Amino acid sequence: MRLGVHLKDSGMSFIRNAWYVATWAHELKEKPLSQTILSENIVLWRGQDGRVRAAEDVCPHRFLPLSKGRVAGNDLQCGYHGLIFNGAGECVGAPTQETLPDCKIRQYPVYENMEMVWIWMGDPAQANPDDIYDLPEYHQDGWGVAFGDALDVEANYLLLCDNLCDPTHVNYVHPSTLGNPDEINAPVTHEDTSWGVLTERLTPDSAPTGFVASFGSHDGRVDMWQRYLMYTPSVSIIDFGATAAGTGSWQEGGDGRIQVYSCHFMTPITETRTIDRWLHVRNFESEDPSVGEQISDQFRIAFAEDKEILQAVQEEETRHEGRFKIGLDLDESAGLFRLKINRILRGETLAQAAE
Amino acid sequence: MRLGVHLKDSGMSFIRNAWYVATWAHELKEKPLSQTILSENIVLWRGQDGRVRAAEDVCPHRFLPLSKGRVAGNDLQCGYHGLIFNGAGECVGAPTQETLPDCKIRQYPVYENMEMVWIWMGDPAQANPDDIYDLPEYHQDGWGVAFGDALDVEANYLLLCDNLCDPTHVNYVHPSTLGNPDEINAPVTHEDTSWGVLTERLTPDSAPTGFVASFGSHDGRVDMWQRYLMYTPSVSIIDFGATAAGTGSWQEGGDGRIQVYSCHFMTPITETRTIDRWLHVRNFESEDPSVGEQISDQFRIAFAEDKEILQAVQEEETRHEGRFKIGLDLDESAGLFRLKINRILRGETLAQAAE
Amino acid sequence: MRLGVHLKDSGMSFIRNAWYVATWAHELKEKPLSQTILSENIVLWRGQDGRVRAAEDVCPHRFLPLSKGRVAGNDLQCGYHGLIFNGAGECVGAPTQETLPDCKIRQYPVYENMEMVWIWMGDPAQANPDDIYDLPEYHQDGWGVAFGDALDVEANYLLLCDNLCDPTHVNYVHPSTLGNPDEINAPVTHEDTSWGVLTERLTPDSAPTGFVASFGSHDGRVDMWQRYLMYTPSVSIIDFGATAAGTGSWQEGGDGRIQVYSCHFMTPITETRTIDRWLHVRNFESEDPSVGEQISDQFRIAFAEDKEILQAVQEEETRHEGRFKIGLDLDESAGLFRLKINRILRGETLAQAAE
Repeated sequence: MRLGVHLKDSGMSFIRNAWYVATWAHELKEKPLSQTILSENIVLWRGQDGRVRAAEDVCPHRFLPLSKGRVAGNDLQCGYHGLIFNGAGECVGAPTQETLPDCKIRQYPVYENMEMVWIWMGDPAQANPDDIYDLPEYHQDGWGVAFGDALDVEANYLLLCDNLCDPTHVNYVHPSTLGNPDEINAPVTHEDTSWGVLTERLTPDSAPTGFVASFGSHDGRVDMWQRYLMYTPSVSIIDFGATAAGTGSWQEGGDGRIQVYSCHFMTPITETRTIDRWLHVRNFESEDPSVGEQISDQFRIAFAEDKEILQAVQEEETRHEGRFKIGLDLDESAGLFRLKINRILRGETLAQAAE
Repeated sequence: MRLGVHLKDSGMSFIRNAWYVATWAHELKEKPLSQTILSENIVLWRGQDGRVRAAEDVCPHRFLPLSKGRVAGNDLQCGYHGLIFNGAGECVGAPTQETLPDCKIRQYPVYENMEMVWIWMGDPAQANPDDIYDLPEYHQDGWGVAFGDALDVEANYLLLCDNLCDPTHVNYVHPSTLGNPDEINAPVTHEDTSWGVLTERLTPDSAPTGFVASFGSHDGRVDMWQRYLMYTPSVSIIDFGATAAGTGSWQEGGDGRIQVYSCHFMTPITETRTIDRWLHVRNFESEDPSVGEQISDQFRIAFAEDKEILQAVQEEETRHEGRFKIGLDLDESAGLFRLKINRILRGETLAQAAE
Repeated sequence: MRLGVHLKDSGMSFIRNAWYVATWAHELKEKPLSQTILSENIVLWRGQDGRVRAAEDVCPHRFLPLSKGRVAGNDLQCGYHGLIFNGAGECVGAPTQETLPDCKIRQYPVYENMEMVWIWMGDPAQANPDDIYDLPEYHQDGWGVAFGDALDVEANYLLLCDNLCDPTHVNYVHPSTLGNPDEINAPVTHEDTSWGVLTERLTPDSAPTGFVASFGSHDGRVDMWQRYLMYTPSVSIIDFGATAAGTGSWQEGGDGRIQVYSCHFMTPITETRTIDRWLHVRNFESEDPSVGEQISDQFRIAFAEDKEILQAVQEEETRHEGRFKIGLDLDESAGLFRLKINRILRGETLAQAAE
């Protein structure tokens, strides 16, 4: 299948009716936390009851960010004149005067899953926690979880998504880490799904990559897989692993089967900045955190290589705005993902116009 | 009295027919000094005769700032080709050629008082040194003067004025330094005066604040006062102190009466930057400079707290330009002061139109 | 001759049909090099065959700068997906797919002379290496060459040219290094030439400057000369030296004659930034590199003084855009040079319109 689409410049708007990761759960302690998400300034805080709340990060009196104030019980108190707002965005205290002012601030639905705080940026009435991404293996016995970093990239989130739909860049951007000469000619296929785009590269009966050799117990040839699951709007799961050649596949068991889910939760900060919070889940040495950290260290090198490329691409895309880009076969997955994003954006625009 | 005014965004122009502090007098030694005031670049220099002069900081030949040059007698010589300008802004020397070029630069009236250089930014014909602010106690025996810093704040000067008309912020912005729980319910009054706005908070018969306890000799209850004198366009005097309860008031003597004038001379640098040169004058331990320095150190902590708040407010005010702000009772003083500023600005605009 | 021209703000366009210095030749080793020249991003690389090539620094696929990639033989390979471009700008490799994409990038003629890489920024058909500036003495026996630095100045290149047409600034900008009180009244003459403007100041029968005293063998009076050869668009050669008084001139020999060519090769980076690569060639102690380095050290001090002035002038020129500048007699050389630049620019505009 050849879509024939050329990637245009990254779009200038965000999908709003979606759950995004706002922060790691452990970042929210006794102090309020300021975060910019989809170019909006948001304050998050954890009440005395342990629940997380979120509101726009501005006091309606003098516009001091409420994140400069303090948590008061389950509420938030402004640091300039002590106005107090609750989790519904209502002003519930005004210690410098006798009557409450008539004012309210915007609140955002929030929810915790997988040690992350998820925030709903659209119409609160449509927020459904069941729609939050979940990886079943994250919660299962026999799987080890390792948390990575919050990678701060000065690039539009769709440039990161392009990259995470594209196995072919690996040999050029990561020649010394993830690259595998055997893969260069392995065919890449992709599939349109209800949740996004699945891109796959299978390399059966090949020499194990450095990664597989160091973490598996293979001394002979292996069947390997890389499956890039790109969920709208911005969750990427890379499922990769290996079994002894001919004994299984990515769906099934097999001799010395090792499998990793490399997970990227990308939050658009502005049109040209994205925070990619990443973690990974593995089916081997699941009780040994040092193994998780070894894998993270390899990823850190590779993700820094991606970051350099993506930031340079963003800079040039801005410089050459409107300039025609040539298309290559490898753009098909990313092109399909962007089509889906545009379709959702168009839906949101039409729904808003109909209101 | 309830004015019902809401504070709008800080205005986009400055009062010109007024004296502003340009620099500390001791900053002007043998080299010319560049200062930006009301968004204008100005060069100040002290001639051989000890007198300070000021002119626009640009050579009309190649636009090199004259502050890059050198003082020559009572005049100023450009550092590129040696043109010489006197304190009236006239070109009086051109060593690279035979005839003087026909050119003049703008000069500004300047005057020294209270170890500061004051500059008149408007029509030179209207400059009257008698209008320069003066604190009589500054010059009197029995009073000790301590010079503070030039606090550089990335905020419009009116945001600083708001703050200096507003005793209620103290308990939220300075809880650990200047705050006083007894004050929370003390009534704040204010008064429209010929020179600006006077805001007052009296706390009779209360426990001494930490400040009073450490610098006075009170072990019992005291009468305390805070009087915020906000002069147009941008001089603030905070008169505060205490006497033994029932023995006096801010006007009169009394047992162990201590009094401090905390003085702020605010110079608008640009629409979003202000330099606040501050000093204080006290009626106790007037001969011991270490006491002045102790007080300054307490102020430094508090002013840094204000600076953080005011810069954040400026940033958000810029971000949310045009957005409605809710009003609180505590805004009355600041609202009145801003009304007076606007009235003066309107007067200057009308006078200019009539020319 | 008095031209009566006033220097306007530096023009907002560059001469394109000209050779500019792109980099020192030794900077080009095994890695591609990114350079901005006339506001265009250019990648330079040296192929396996030792030849330098240049192209626009952007891959037409995703706009990654090709300078982020690697040299492959005589070609350049993109660091994102491996596209390969040759020195003619043609795509000659695409390892992630079966067929070559149909795309080409702009290439630039380049040529090496005097240990520098020269680039032609205009119509490639008009590029003639014979037009590249050459100093015969650079290649001759008995002359010593010393390479200086790449001085990075935040100013339009014409501000540097003004400075290099103007002997009168020396006594004000460089009073402690190059200045010479005897010169103040020496007449400056200038001449319109086919290649630019020649400005001359001769100081016969005067005390030797510090420079002459330290590098020559003169204990008596000398004849000195300074000849500023300013070539369009941006090569400056300052020919200066001395002989024993009455024994010769700048053209001829004479007792203990010393002569230096101080050469500036200025490359406009943007409208407000210029890189000035400088070197010098001398007729004395030509085999002793430490003498060259001593001279360079004196120049470094002086050029840093110029840089400070020129950057301040650029900043003020931008601030006061459109403001009238007064003219002085000393502007005649620079004014003539700018007239010539404008004439060439107009010619290029007319030629383009005629196409």
